[in-house]
Amino acid sequence: MPELRKDPISRRWVIIATERAARPTDFKHEGIEVNDLDRCPFCEGREDRTPPEIYAVRAAGTAPNGKGWTVRVVSNKFPALRIEGSTQRTKVGLFTRMDGVGAHEVIVEATDHHTHLGLLPVEHVVQIIRAYLQRYRDLRGDARFEYALLFRNHGRTAGASLSHPHSQLIALPVVPKRVAEELDAAERHFGQHGVCIYCAILEQEQQGRDRLIFENEAFVALAPYASRFPFETLILPKRHEADFGALPPDQERLLAQALREMLHRLHICLDNPPYNFIIHTLPYRSEAKHAHHWHVEIMPRLTQVAGFEWGSGFYINPVVPEEAARYLREAIPAPMPVGPVSAGRPHGEVGDRMRDS
Amino acid sequence: MPELRKDPISRRWVIIATERAARPTDFKHEGIEVNDLDRCPFCEGREDRTPPEIYAVRAAGTAPNGKGWTVRVVSNKFPALRIEGSTQRTKVGLFTRMDGVGAHEVIVEATDHHTHLGLLPVEHVVQIIRAYLQRYRDLRGDARFEYALLFRNHGRTAGASLSHPHSQLIALPVVPKRVAEELDAAERHFGQHGVCIYCAILEQEQQGRDRLIFENEAFVALAPYASRFPFETLILPKRHEADFGALPPDQERLLAQALREMLHRLHICLDNPPYNFIIHTLPYRSEAKHAHHWHVEIMPRLTQVAGFEWGSGFYINPVVPEEAARYLREAIPAPMPVGPVSAGRPHGEVGDRMRDS
Repeated sequence: MPELRKDPISRRWVIIATERAARPTDFKHEGIEVNDLDRCPFCEGREDRTPPEIYAVRAAGTAPNGKGWTVRVVSNKFPALRIEGSTQRTKVGLFTRMDGVGAHEVIVEATDHHTHLGLLPVEHVVQIIRAYLQRYRDLRGDARFEYALLFRNHGRTAGASLSHPHSQLIALPVVPKRVAEELDAAERHFGQHGVCIYCAILEQEQQGRDRLIFENEAFVALAPYASRFPFETLILPKRHEADFGALPPDQERLLAQALREMLHRLHICLDNPPYNFIIHTLPYRSEAKHAHHWHVEIMPRLTQVAGFEWGSGFYINPVVPEEAARYLREAIPAPMPVGPVSAGRPHGEVGDRMRDS
Repeated sequence: MPELRKDPISRRWVIIATERAARPTDFKHEGIEVNDLDRCPFCEGREDRTPPEIYAVRAAGTAPNGKGWTVRVVSNKFPALRIEGSTQRTKVGLFTRMDGVGAHEVIVEATDHHTHLGLLPVEHVVQIIRAYLQRYRDLRGDARFEYALLFRNHGRTAGASLSHPHSQLIALPVVPKRVAEELDAAERHFGQHGVCIYCAILEQEQQGRDRLIFENEAFVALAPYASRFPFETLILPKRHEADFGALPPDQERLLAQALREMLHRLHICLDNPPYNFIIHTLPYRSEAKHAHHWHVEIMPRLTQVAGFEWGSGFYINPVVPEEAARYLREAIPAPMPVGPVSAGRPHGEVGDRMRDS
């Protein structure tokens, strides 16, 4: 019998197809195409093909916009939004419009065209997290921005137009619908129960344990109860914190470890699947620090979203979340220690520049 | 300068990229693959490969589950939900679950494997609309069902796993999230302004006219102000009516004409693009007839939905809706009369069975 499950935050119902035990190998995907090496603007030595760098982790003595970096942030050459403009809203009868003001940045994660976040050493992922934080905190200073969305598209099926490893940051002059919904739900729950709903979910999941995948001192990774997609996962800080930008320095490495670990397990379990991840955080100007709880949502893109899903906000998930969690728990036999971790392929020391291959 | 537009119903913001005039030919798509002819279970003569028919339009004297039909409704062989079971909800801590009870039916639209709704004669589309209505009304009688979603996936990119022309109907024991949101917004607007928001939009659009595409005595087709997708369109009844199931017999043909017309124009304009369409209607047990307004949402699937959209509910649309409307208005030079219309390829008389080719 299929099962209907309701997500307590989005109030979205999901059909969980429990009848057939789907295995990771049941999901064929296109794979991660890497055929744009000769025209890639993000490879080392081609720094002049991007707008000037906004932030970079560089070897001592190297100059901006040249070789010698490990992580590099630039403006998107084809931005969805423009930095100049006003945020004044105008009404046209029933409709509301404003200028498309915002920032659209690209975080180039490594010089190596062929690697990805789940294969890099943890120390390198720490540099990427620091780049996220620096840009996230910096854009808060522009009073026109209400929200900054950090996300990553891996593979063409997940919307990546370039295969060189990169994430994106879009700062927006309005709070997006899904963020507002999450915040409303969190505030409603807090109003009724006096507790953050994410903290309550964490407590319940840490008791049940059948949807837990990984944890370290500061973070828990789990398969959500009402997962919309096969092998969907969440990473949550254990301690209540609404704002990603408030991440203390001593947790940067723990977040890098949790993120790298989950992406590595997905890589093993599903043979380098296309995926999106998104950092959900409190809007810049929100006061609801008590109710919200920042988190990372990772969504492998293995199934097609069709008319039913678009029309209803209802999803059909062919993999039971507890089964997905079990596969992902078992994907790596030994727990990975905090500290430098050997990736699938050799990389330079921290601070060294990564070689293109 | 890109423009931000807010949809007054969903309160979703959309980035409209106004800088580059995108033309229909800018959108490459995979096309509609038709390679499953020899194993297609929906072709005439293979009626034993589907579950028994629930409804059919048949030539006089032909027996159920054999040849001689023009439109045929069967249960989905691999249903997302099962007809047996209870709708009792159980709480597991913070989570809610219930049995996956529902109906999942397939409306096979024609015997011809190679045609589609936008190419069939209007008289044939009338038969399809009647099949929709019969099944939609019939399932209302099952007190466990709260909503029935009628939708169509055209092409693999839009989620169709079989290329033979067909639509689907899923009856659900809960009101889906997106439907509940729409209804909430409509009731809020009615509470504040004493008028249906869709009626108000229709009035505004019929004055402005730059997003109107087509109209007949009973229906209007337009490009929504804050369209999420390039060439997205809506078909709305002109007279206020919340319930698709209440369609009067004298409007069946006008709806068939409007739907066929819009799908035909998309076919011409975008070279038979993949698309989804969805009928949005009042939940079976809702009392909010004054506030809601049923409609058909048609979404060509030309762009990739990536991390940004999933994480934010924000969309980037590279085509200005007014431009999309203009292309679709101009796609057919002469207005199409109500009445039998010649399709791109010859078809039999109304009531005759359609030939496989």
